[in-house]
Parts: sequence; structure tokens; C-alpha cells
Amino acid sequence: MPPLGEPQMTQGPRIDPPRLNEPYLLTPGPLTTSYATKEAMMRDWGSWDGDFRAMTAEMRKRLLALLGPGSEAFDCVPIQGSGSYCVEAMLGSFVPRDGKVLVLANGAYGLRAAKTMEYLGRDFHLLDKGDYLPPRGAEVSAILEADPAITHVLAIHCETSSGILNPVEEISAATYAAGRELLIDSMSAFGALGLRPWEIRYEAMVSSANKCIEGVPGFGFVIARKEALQRAAGNSHSLSLDVEAQWAHMEKTGQWRFTPPTHVVAAFLEALRQHEAEGGVAGRGARYARNRDVMVEGMRELGFETLLAERWLSPIIVTFFCPADEKFVFDRFYELMKAKGFIIYPGKLTVVESFRIGCIGQMDEHVMRQVVRAAKETLAEMGVASAAPPAAALEERAKLAA
Amino acid sequence: MPPLGEPQMTQGPRIDPPRLNEPYLLTPGPLTTSYATKEAMMRDWGSWDGDFRAMTAEMRKRLLALLGPGSEAFDCVPIQGSGSYCVEAMLGSFVPRDGKVLVLANGAYGLRAAKTMEYLGRDFHLLDKGDYLPPRGAEVSAILEADPAITHVLAIHCETSSGILNPVEEISAATYAAGRELLIDSMSAFGALGLRPWEIRYEAMVSSANKCIEGVPGFGFVIARKEALQRAAGNSHSLSLDVEAQWAHMEKTGQWRFTPPTHVVAAFLEALRQHEAEGGVAGRGARYARNRDVMVEGMRELGFETLLAERWLSPIIVTFFCPADEKFVFDRFYELMKAKGFIIYPGKLTVVESFRIGCIGQMDEHVMRQVVRAAKETLAEMGVASAAPPAAALEERAKLAA
Ligand SMILES: Cc1ncc(COP(=O)(O)O)c(C=O)c1O
Ligand SMILES: Cc1ncc(COP(=O)(O)O)c(C=O)c1O
Repeated sequence: MPPLGEPQMTQGPRIDPPRLNEPYLLTPGPLTTSYATKEAMMRDWGSWDGDFRAMTAEMRKRLLALLGPGSEAFDCVPIQGSGSYCVEAMLGSFVPRDGKVLVLANGAYGLRAAKTMEYLGRDFHLLDKGDYLPPRGAEVSAILEADPAITHVLAIHCETSSGILNPVEEISAATYAAGRELLIDSMSAFGALGLRPWEIRYEAMVSSANKCIEGVPGFGFVIARKEALQRAAGNSHSLSLDVEAQWAHMEKTGQWRFTPPTHVVAAFLEALRQHEAEGGVAGRGARYARNRDVMVEGMRELGFETLLAERWLSPIIVTFFCPADEKFVFDRFYELMKAKGFIIYPGKLTVVESFRIGCIGQMDEHVMRQVVRAAKETLAEMGVASAAPPAAALEERAKLAA
Repeated sequence: MPPLGEPQMTQGPRIDPPRLNEPYLLTPGPLTTSYATKEAMMRDWGSWDGDFRAMTAEMRKRLLALLGPGSEAFDCVPIQGSGSYCVEAMLGSFVPRDGKVLVLANGAYGLRAAKTMEYLGRDFHLLDKGDYLPPRGAEVSAILEADPAITHVLAIHCETSSGILNPVEEISAATYAAGRELLIDSMSAFGALGLRPWEIRYEAMVSSANKCIEGVPGFGFVIARKEALQRAAGNSHSLSLDVEAQWAHMEKTGQWRFTPPTHVVAAFLEALRQHEAEGGVAGRGARYARNRDVMVEGMRELGFETLLAERWLSPIIVTFFCPADEKFVFDRFYELMKAKGFIIYPGKLTVVESFRIGCIGQMDEHVMRQVVRAAKETLAEMGVASAAPPAAALEERAKLAA
């Protein structure tokens, strides 16, 4: 791999390049983490020991503090496993067995939540908006009015499949106006985008260690109203994924019910400290937004087009259409970008070919400029004359605008 | 913390002391891992990328190889989360919804499996042998004969609560003689003790990364007959814990269904290589047995008594009775041992006071001698004249011998 380019001045906190000359991960997690975060894993902790219990307590406290004023009504419950485990734990714990969920889907993660409901054998209504159309407040209101059996609404904050930022405030207003409760999958957004209790009402949300807080993967967490946690007792279909049981045990003993991923927790705590040093949610969100802006502008100059209009573009990950030029083959583009030090991400659209570039992780606008430069060189190597998408892609996008 | 003692010659592979002058974890996992294992975490991997897929494939292959001849009939399915997640995944995936499980319990982990069955809402029969009595083949035969509805037997290989090594071969013979199927929780034993298909028959077993392979915690794995994996489709109560779905996806794509704990996997792969270099299951088991022998002998010289008779003592973890002397207070003993560089483990017996010392992790007989020396000094500091247990403890033990 060639060197990743000359050091440049940055205005925000200094972002060190990866030390091992490894590629940047322009993916929605696992992502590129700081050296200090990884270094925190160079020690073994006893999970029963007081030192580790103190780490767990500090982590929960720091996560809650990210909510800002109003956080006192909430508590934070870490859950071992991946982000999907946390979504399943949230659905299984907060939705009573005779409850019914309106699942708002516009991509793979919404559909996965619906599949989870199938496994649970609990009732749900799926609103499937396809690849990228946002579910709107008015639609939610109409469905809730038509179906009084629905007790909960599940929304995806940033649907990482397309990178769309769903209008969760609007969805929340519609949900509570109809007397129902909101659960949010904020996996890829929390930590860079706020879910402030005084701005948006919800019962519970989930996220994971390896997204915008920039930890390494191995666990996630539920942030829920204490009152909702109390009501959750006895709902869960699973011992391992029982959020209320984990909460009650942690409150009583300071320990996780089952062996925690100690090293991953230590890394996450370090990542939380760095998150604070960067200015918390506002600081982190600003860096990612700048990453997106610089990267999208550069890619557009090369002729690439984004799936989404400005309004729905998240600072998390951006979907680009694959160029129409038949010399463009994604696998080759991927390998050539990787050889230049950048791991990008395949697309998840069903109708047209696409790929994604993440804006999250330990990188700043200078890295994003290198990404654009690498994409330019790669197109030249592949002999792709124009990065313009096929007409079908632009028709798709026009539908969205309508 | 004082230095951990002068370097000494060892006969087996060299075991480096922890580099950060951190305490040894004499616990049943998370445990003390090697520096190289932790160092493997100093890099971020893209979970979608080919390099990581190759790591996953190598890991699965190496784990299967630990079974030895006959492993071709099996496959290995890693599962994100802690060991309890894997037990739940195994029960939920291999036991049909109308199946019934005989749960053989003699400690906390057997009881947790029974509780898991309750959550699943599937039928089970609990044989609870109390704190440390082993479930025997003849008992299993009798129960299976009396209850034809039972389809599966769940056995705990090493019940880590007491450290007892349960007679799984005998249990397997009884199970298959009655035409039922065996599932094994070999969490704390696999990698140091064999579960060789030509010596013992079973459908599936689980273990986790942070036990005898000496990785860090964050995932576990199921090793199951391919034929049983095929039959498991549609059984699981949980999307996240569906072993068959994870297997099918991994076979097809080489990827984990959901984000894997990439750093923990990298560490585990390094740990598997070290395991092979130490001579595989035989080499690892021999070191642990030597750890146990040296430690138990030394502790007995100090007057401590083990709960279990020789025959049932595992090379994984050993339970000692707390001394009768009222100057002995476990919390103080724990803190003073920790200050000397050794983190021990509280007991889990219901009838008498006890504590546990683990024999697994990156340590050898020289470390075990230091443990004994530290215990001796600690007793002196506490003013405990004799480490002999109360009469009640010895009566308990006599029952076991009968
Ligand atoms: C919005 C959203 N939900 C759920 C998930 C699933 O998380 P995991 O892959 O950790 O299971 C992701 C992962 O990227 C996500 O972005
Ligand atoms: C025999 C046995 N089963 C299950 C478990 C549970 O594993 P975990 O704590 O990783 O959930 C353990 C943990 O020590 C164990 O020893």
C-alpha cells in the first residue's frame, strides 16, 4: 500500500492516521478507530472485579449524559452482541407479547426489524417504503388511526442501507399524538446526531459501540425510560436478550449478567472520553458533516451522483450510483481503492447498482480529499471516461424528489 | 503492586508475565491472555472485506481441527455475544419447539440452562444434583426410560461453579442407548479437554473465545454435526441466536450475518495459533493440569481443603472451603491477594463458604507457586492461624464421597 499522503493541517482535533499503514474503513462500522482506543485493549480485566465494575458504571453514565437535559428519566443498559441483537432485545423487551408494532422500513435494517418480529411471533404491520423513500408523519398518523391494535412504532434513525436520515421527530409527534410509543434504532446515528429528550419523545433507543462513538464492535446499548424498563419485566422471549433483567442485575450488582467483552468495553470507554474531548455530539456531528460535504462535493466533481437529494443526506454514509460506463466494475473499483488505502462499501439498493462511502470513524476532511483523489485515479486506471450514472438511476431519483 | 517474582526456568512453552504489571486473573474467563493475543487487536478490519472473511474461515477450520478424526461430520458456527448466548442459541436451534430436554444440573450453569428453557417456553425436565454431585449415566438412563417425551439431554462438561468435571462420556452412552441426542456446554473445558467424536457422541457443543483457547471475550461458537445443523432450520425463537441461519449465511457468503467483533476475532485467531504451538488440546490440557496440581498441593500444605475429591477435580478451576478461623474474611483475602498481583474468584456454593482459583490462562506452574506464596503471606497478614475449613464443610464433602 502506498503512503496515505502528506500530513496536512487540520482545524478540528488532530486525527492520527492508522499506525499500521492499514486501510481506512469508509464503512458504517466496524470503522477506523483511534490508536488510543485500540491501545486500551492491551490489558486483561477481571469482569467480577471492582475496577471493571467502575468502568461499566462510568460508561453508562457517559452514554446517558449524551442525551443532555432530561436524561434523568432514562437509564442505559449495555447488551453483549451486535447491533441487531440490541434491536431484537429492544423489541422483545418493550413490546408486550400481545402488543403490535408498526415497523417503518426503507431499507435493509427496517426489514430486519420486521423479520425479528416474525421470529418473536408478535404482531406487526410493515410499512415498506422501498429503497429510500422516507416514512412521513402523516402516513404514520393514518396507519395508527386505522389500526388501534398497534401499540408501538419502530423507526430507523439513519437507515444505513441508503444513508437516508429519516424524519424521526415528525414520526415521534405522530406516534404520541395517537397515544402510542416510539422505539428507535439509532445504530448508525447516535453520538453524531442527537436524540434529545426535550426535542423528541421516545421510550427506548439502541445503538452500538462501533458506530459514531468510534469504539470497536462487541456490544451495543439500549437507552430507555426507567419507567419503560420497569414495565418490561417478563416480556422477553430470550434470557440473553432480556433488557430488563440485565438492567435489574446491573443496578443491583454493578455487573453484567453474563461475561462482558471486557477489552471492547475498555476501548469504548476510551472512545467516549475522546468523544467528549471533541465536543460531544455537536463536535462529532460537525466533523462528520464536514467529511460528507467535502467528499460529496469532490465525488460530484468527478461526475458521480448521489442517490439522495441534499435534504435526506446523512453525515453517516452516502450512496452513489455506479457509473453507466461499462468499464466500471464495482469489484475492480473496490480492489483498486483498497490498494490505495481505502475500503469502501458495496451498495444495498434493489433497483440500480450503487456503492457507499462512509463519513464516520477516525478521519477528517483531509482524508476525504484523499478518498476523492483515489477515486479519480481509480477511474483513470479503469479507463472509465465518465462517472455519470445510467438514465434509470436518475429516473429513480426523480421519483424521490416528486 | 510488587514485582511478580523472579523469572524462573519453565519446561513448557515460555509464558510471559503480563506486560503492564497488571494482576493475573485466576478466574474462569475473562482470563490472562498473552501479549501477542492482545496485540492482534491493534488494527481495524472491515467485516465485509476479503481479508476478514479469510480470518473467519481459518478460525472455523482451526476450531474444527481440534476435534481430530471424525471432525468432517461437524461444522463450526461462531455466535456473537457471551457464552450464555451460545447455550441459548444451541438450545433454541437444535431442540424442536415440541422437543423436551433433560437438563443435568449441578451448579449455576446447569440451572441457567434450565432457566433458558423456561424463557424459550419449551418443555424440560431438570435433574438438579445440588452444588457438586455429578449426574451419572445410570440416573440418565432411568429418567429417559421413564419419560419417552424427552428428545435431548443437556450436559455441562466442566461445571465451573464448583470446578467439577462431569462424566460426559457416561452420560453420552446413556443418552444414545436410549435413542436421544446430547448437547454439551463445554464452555470452560473445550480446548484443554477433548470432545473427540470417536470417544464421545454428541450432536452439538458450545464454548467461548475467552476460556481455554485463551482469547478475549466477545463471542462463542457452536460445533455441531452438519446433519443436525440442517435439521435445525426453523427451530430458533430468536433471529440473532439462530445457529442454522448463521451457518447457512456463512457457508454462502463467508461472512457473519451481523457485525462480528472483528478485533476479538483477530485476537482469537492469534490465540488459536498459540494453542497449536503449545501442542493443541493435549499440550494445553497438560499445562493446566500441572497448574492445578502445583496449586492444589501448595494450598493443601497451607491447610486449605478442596471441595471435591481428586477424581472430580478439573484442570480448569478449583473450589476451596473458606477457613473456619473467624479472622478469615473473603473480601479482605480477595483485596490482599489482588494487591499481590492475583485476582481470585468468589465461590458459588449455596451451603458453605468457599472461593475458587482458576488454572486457565497465560500462566504456568511458577505463577501457581507465587499464588500459593501470596496466599500464605495473606493468611499471615490477616492473622489466620489455620486455613482448615469448618466441620460443616467436611461433612458436606463426606456426603459427596458416599
Ligand atoms: C441502522 C442499523 N440498524 C441495525 C444495524 C445492525 O447492526 P449489527 O450489524 O451490529 O448487527 C446496523 C448496522 O450497520 C444499522 O446501521
Ligand atoms: C460451563 C459454563 N457455561 C456457561 C457459562 C456462561 O458464559 P458467559 O459468562 O460467557 O455467558 C460459563 C461461564 O463461565 C461456564 O463456565
